[in-house]
Amino acid sequence: MGLTLKTVIRCADYRASRRFYHEVLGLEVLTEWDLPQGSGCTLGFGEAGFGGILELYQMTPADSRYDPAFGKPFPSDKVDLQLGTSDLAAWQARLDGVWPYEGPVTMPWPESRLKLRDPDGLLVQLCVEGAEE
Amino acid sequence: MGLTLKTVIRCADYRASRRFYHEVLGLEVLTEWDLPQGSGCTLGFGEAGFGGILELYQMTPADSRYDPAFGKPFPSDKVDLQLGTSDLAAWQARLDGVWPYEGPVTMPWPESRLKLRDPDGLLVQLCVEGAEE
Repeated sequence: MGLTLKTVIRCADYRASRRFYHEVLGLEVLTEWDLPQGSGCTLGFGEAGFGGILELYQMTPADSRYDPAFGKPFPSDKVDLQLGTSDLAAWQARLDGVWPYEGPVTMPWPESRLKLRDPDGLLVQLCVEGAEE
Repeated sequence: MGLTLKTVIRCADYRASRRFYHEVLGLEVLTEWDLPQGSGCTLGFGEAGFGGILELYQMTPADSRYDPAFGKPFPSDKVDLQLGTSDLAAWQARLDGVWPYEGPVTMPWPESRLKLRDPDGLLVQLCVEGAEE
Protein backbone atom coordinates (compact mmCIF):
# COMPACT_ATOMS: atom_id res chain seq x y z
CA MET A 1 0.00 0.00 0.00
CA GLY A 2 3.04 2.27 -0.42
CA LEU A 3 2.33 5.69 -1.84
CA THR A 4 4.40 8.20 -3.79
CA LEU A 5 4.06 11.96 -3.43
CA LYS A 6 3.20 14.47 -6.13
CA THR A 7 2.24 18.00 -5.15
CA VAL A 8 0.33 19.82 -7.88
CA ILE A 9 0.16 23.58 -8.34
CA ARG A 10 -2.56 24.81 -10.69
CA CYS A 11 -0.63 27.88 -11.69
CA ALA A 12 -1.75 31.13 -13.31
CA ASP A 13 1.13 31.39 -15.82
CA TYR A 14 2.92 28.18 -16.71
CA ARG A 15 5.94 29.81 -18.35
CA ALA A 16 6.54 32.01 -15.29
CA SER A 17 6.18 29.05 -12.92
CA ARG A 18 8.43 26.85 -15.07
CA ARG A 19 11.09 29.55 -15.09
CA PHE A 20 11.01 29.75 -11.28
CA TYR A 21 11.10 26.05 -10.50
CA HIS A 22 13.29 24.86 -13.37
CA GLU A 23 15.61 27.76 -14.18
CA VAL A 24 15.89 29.48 -10.79
CA LEU A 25 15.59 26.48 -8.46
CA GLY A 26 17.11 24.01 -10.90
CA LEU A 27 14.54 21.22 -10.61
CA GLU A 28 14.71 18.69 -13.41
CA VAL A 29 11.82 18.61 -15.89
CA LEU A 30 10.65 14.99 -16.12
CA THR A 31 7.64 15.33 -18.45
CA GLU A 32 6.03 18.28 -20.18
CA TRP A 33 2.82 18.81 -22.14
CA ASP A 34 1.11 21.55 -24.14
CA LEU A 35 -2.51 20.71 -24.94
CA PRO A 36 -5.75 22.60 -25.63
CA GLN A 37 -6.83 21.98 -22.03
CA GLY A 38 -3.61 23.26 -20.58
CA SER A 39 0.17 23.30 -20.32
CA GLY A 40 2.34 21.84 -17.63
CA CYS A 41 5.25 19.75 -16.50
CA THR A 42 6.42 17.49 -13.73
CA LEU A 43 9.62 18.31 -11.88
CA GLY A 44 11.62 15.78 -9.92
CA PHE A 45 13.38 15.77 -6.61
CA GLY A 46 16.22 13.34 -6.08
CA GLU A 47 17.20 10.79 -8.70
CA ALA A 48 14.55 10.67 -11.45
CA GLY A 49 11.87 12.03 -9.12
CA PHE A 50 12.18 9.28 -6.50
CA GLY A 51 12.36 12.02 -3.87
CA GLY A 52 8.91 13.29 -4.81
CA ILE A 53 7.45 15.21 -7.71
CA LEU A 54 6.11 18.70 -8.19
CA GLU A 55 3.63 19.34 -11.00
CA LEU A 56 2.88 22.71 -12.56
CA TYR A 57 -0.27 22.91 -14.63
CA GLN A 58 -1.95 25.93 -16.16
CA MET A 59 -5.45 24.84 -17.16
CA THR A 60 -7.60 26.48 -19.75
CA PRO A 61 -11.42 26.51 -19.56
CA ALA A 62 -11.24 23.49 -21.92
CA ASP A 63 -10.29 21.38 -18.88
CA SER A 64 -13.47 20.33 -17.08
CA ARG A 65 -11.83 21.01 -13.73
CA TYR A 66 -11.01 24.63 -14.57
CA ASP A 67 -11.68 27.18 -11.83
CA PRO A 68 -11.00 30.94 -12.21
CA ALA A 69 -9.35 30.75 -8.76
CA PHE A 70 -6.40 28.98 -10.43
CA GLY A 71 -5.54 32.28 -12.14
CA LYS A 72 -5.30 34.16 -8.86
CA PRO A 73 -2.54 34.16 -6.22
CA PHE A 74 -2.65 31.90 -3.19
CA PRO A 75 -4.72 33.79 -0.60
CA SER A 76 -2.73 32.56 2.43
CA ASP A 77 0.22 30.41 3.47
CA LYS A 78 -2.06 27.51 4.42
CA VAL A 79 0.18 25.37 2.25
CA ASP A 80 3.86 25.95 1.59
CA LEU A 81 6.86 24.11 0.18
CA GLN A 82 9.98 23.64 2.26
CA LEU A 83 12.91 22.59 0.12
CA GLY A 84 15.80 21.11 2.04
CA THR A 85 19.38 21.98 1.15
CA SER A 86 22.78 21.69 2.79
CA ASP A 87 24.16 25.09 1.77
CA LEU A 88 22.08 28.23 2.21
CA ALA A 89 24.98 30.56 1.36
CA ALA A 90 25.32 28.94 -2.06
CA TRP A 91 21.61 29.53 -2.64
CA GLN A 92 21.92 33.17 -1.63
CA ALA A 93 24.73 33.61 -4.13
CA ARG A 94 22.64 31.93 -6.80
CA LEU A 95 19.50 33.97 -6.07
CA ASP A 96 21.06 37.41 -5.68
CA GLY A 97 19.87 39.59 -8.55
CA VAL A 98 17.84 36.67 -9.95
CA TRP A 99 14.91 36.21 -7.59
CA PRO A 100 13.89 38.16 -4.48
CA TYR A 101 14.09 36.45 -1.12
CA GLU A 102 13.96 37.23 2.57
CA GLY A 103 16.54 35.93 4.99
CA PRO A 104 18.37 33.98 6.03
CA VAL A 105 15.82 33.72 8.82
CA THR A 106 16.91 31.78 11.90
CA MET A 107 14.03 29.74 13.26
CA PRO A 108 13.39 29.18 17.02
CA TRP A 109 14.86 25.69 16.49
CA PRO A 110 18.17 24.84 14.76
CA GLU A 111 17.20 25.73 11.21
CA SER A 112 17.77 28.64 8.83
CA ARG A 113 15.66 29.54 5.83
CA LEU A 114 15.43 31.72 2.76
CA LYS A 115 11.85 32.73 2.07
CA LEU A 116 10.77 33.07 -1.55
CA ARG A 117 7.46 33.49 -3.31
CA ASP A 118 6.73 31.58 -6.49
CA PRO A 119 4.90 33.40 -9.32
CA ASP A 120 1.55 32.48 -7.72
CA GLY A 121 2.63 33.85 -4.36
CA LEU A 122 3.13 30.37 -2.91
CA LEU A 123 5.57 30.43 0.00
CA VAL A 124 8.66 28.42 -0.96
CA GLN A 125 11.37 28.16 1.66
CA LEU A 126 14.90 26.90 1.22
CA CYS A 127 15.81 25.27 4.51
CA VAL A 128 19.00 24.05 6.09
CA GLU A 129 18.78 22.14 9.33
CA GLY A 130 21.34 22.47 12.09
CA ALA A 131 22.98 25.38 13.88
CA GLU A 132 24.71 28.17 11.95
CA GLU A 133 28.45 27.68 11.63
CA MET B 1 22.42 22.22 -5.11
CA GLY B 2 20.12 19.20 -4.78
CA LEU B 3 16.86 19.87 -2.97
CA THR B 4 14.47 17.70 -0.98
CA LEU B 5 10.70 18.18 -0.95
CA LYS B 6 8.52 18.82 2.06
CA THR B 7 4.93 19.98 1.52
CA VAL B 8 3.46 21.66 4.58
CA ILE B 9 -0.23 21.90 5.42
CA ARG B 10 -1.14 24.40 8.12
CA CYS B 11 -4.17 22.46 9.23
CA ALA B 12 -7.19 23.52 11.26
CA ASP B 13 -7.33 20.42 13.49
CA TYR B 14 -4.12 18.46 13.90
CA ARG B 15 -5.71 15.34 15.40
CA ALA B 16 -8.20 15.09 12.53
CA SER B 17 -5.47 15.59 9.92
CA ARG B 18 -3.15 13.11 11.63
CA ARG B 19 -5.94 10.54 11.65
CA PHE B 20 -6.50 10.97 7.91
CA TYR B 21 -2.89 10.86 6.76
CA HIS B 22 -1.51 8.38 9.29
CA GLU B 23 -4.40 6.05 10.14
CA VAL B 24 -6.44 6.16 6.95
CA LEU B 25 -3.67 6.60 4.37
CA GLY B 26 -1.03 4.78 6.40
CA LEU B 27 1.80 7.29 6.08
CA GLU B 28 4.57 6.77 8.61
CA VAL B 29 4.99 9.42 11.32
CA LEU B 30 8.65 10.46 11.30
CA THR B 31 8.64 13.22 13.93
CA GLU B 32 5.93 14.74 16.08
CA TRP B 33 5.72 17.75 18.39
CA ASP B 34 3.24 19.34 20.80
CA LEU B 35 4.27 22.84 21.84
CA PRO B 36 2.58 26.03 23.04
CA GLN B 37 2.90 27.46 19.51
CA GLY B 38 1.37 24.43 17.86
CA SER B 39 1.18 20.69 17.28
CA GLY B 40 2.27 18.76 14.26
CA CYS B 41 4.16 15.93 12.66
CA THR B 42 6.11 14.96 9.59
CA LEU B 43 4.99 11.98 7.54
CA GLY B 44 7.26 10.13 5.15
CA PHE B 45 6.90 8.69 1.68
CA GLY B 46 9.18 5.85 0.68
CA GLU B 47 11.91 4.56 2.95
CA ALA B 48 12.37 6.94 5.90
CA GLY B 49 10.90 9.87 3.97
CA PHE B 50 13.39 9.73 1.09
CA GLY B 51 10.40 9.88 -1.27
CA GLY B 52 9.36 13.25 0.09
CA ILE B 53 7.76 14.47 3.29
CA LEU B 54 4.38 15.85 4.24
CA GLU B 55 4.11 18.06 7.31
CA LEU B 56 0.93 18.75 9.26
CA TYR B 57 1.04 21.69 11.63
CA GLN B 58 -1.77 23.29 13.59
CA MET B 59 -0.46 26.65 14.81
CA THR B 60 -1.78 28.58 17.76
CA PRO B 61 -1.68 32.39 17.92
CA ALA B 62 1.53 31.91 19.96
CA ASP B 63 3.32 31.18 16.65
CA SER B 64 4.31 34.52 15.08
CA ARG B 65 3.26 33.22 11.66
CA TYR B 66 -0.29 32.42 12.77
CA ASP B 67 -3.05 33.42 10.35
CA PRO B 68 -6.76 32.81 11.04
CA ALA B 69 -6.97 31.50 7.44
CA PHE B 70 -5.16 28.36 8.66
CA GLY B 71 -8.31 27.42 10.58
CA LYS B 72 -10.50 27.56 7.49
CA PRO B 73 -10.86 25.08 4.62
CA PHE B 74 -8.89 25.41 1.40
CA PRO B 75 -10.92 27.79 -0.79
CA SER B 76 -10.08 26.04 -4.09
CA ASP B 77 -8.14 23.16 -5.62
CA LYS B 78 -5.26 25.46 -6.62
CA VAL B 79 -3.01 22.95 -4.89
CA ASP B 80 -3.66 19.23 -4.53
CA LEU B 81 -1.82 16.07 -3.60
CA GLN B 82 -1.66 13.15 -6.00
CA LEU B 83 -0.51 10.00 -4.26
CA GLY B 84 0.66 7.27 -6.59
CA THR B 85 -0.25 3.65 -5.96
CA SER B 86 -0.23 0.42 -7.92
CA ASP B 87 -3.57 -0.98 -6.72
CA LEU B 88 -6.67 1.22 -6.65
CA ALA B 89 -9.00 -1.67 -5.86
CA ALA B 90 -7.08 -2.38 -2.65
CA TRP B 91 -7.48 1.25 -1.68
CA GLN B 92 -11.21 1.14 -2.36
CA ALA B 93 -11.51 -1.89 -0.08
CA ARG B 94 -9.52 -0.10 2.59
CA LEU B 95 -11.49 3.15 2.36
CA ASP B 96 -15.03 1.73 2.15
CA GLY B 97 -16.87 2.70 5.32
CA VAL B 98 -13.77 4.49 6.61
CA TRP B 99 -13.41 7.64 4.51
CA PRO B 100 -15.60 9.01 1.72
CA TYR B 101 -14.22 9.08 -1.79
CA GLU B 102 -15.33 9.61 -5.35
CA GLY B 103 -14.39 7.22 -8.13
CA PRO B 104 -12.60 5.45 -9.51
CA VAL B 105 -12.50 8.26 -12.06
CA THR B 106 -10.91 7.43 -15.41
CA MET B 107 -8.89 10.37 -16.70
CA PRO B 108 -8.67 11.34 -20.40
CA TRP B 109 -5.19 9.73 -20.34
CA PRO B 110 -4.32 6.24 -19.03
CA GLU B 111 -4.83 6.90 -15.33
CA SER B 112 -7.52 6.17 -12.75
CA ARG B 113 -8.07 8.01 -9.51
CA LEU B 114 -9.94 7.98 -6.23
CA LYS B 115 -10.75 11.52 -5.11
CA LEU B 116 -10.70 12.25 -1.39
CA ARG B 117 -10.83 15.40 0.72
CA ASP B 118 -8.60 15.75 3.76
CA PRO B 119 -10.09 17.35 6.91
CA ASP B 120 -9.20 20.82 5.55
CA GLY B 121 -10.92 20.11 2.25
CA LEU B 122 -7.62 19.65 0.42
CA LEU B 123 -8.03 17.50 -2.68
CA VAL B 124 -6.05 14.28 -2.22
CA GLN B 125 -6.16 11.83 -5.10
CA LEU B 126 -4.98 8.24 -5.11
CA CYS B 127 -3.70 7.62 -8.61
CA VAL B 128 -2.75 4.57 -10.60
CA GLU B 129 -1.15 5.03 -13.98
CA GLY B 130 -1.84 2.75 -16.89
CA ALA B 131 -4.96 1.41 -18.56
CA GLU B 132 -7.65 -0.42 -16.60
CA GLU B 133 -7.31 -4.18 -16.66
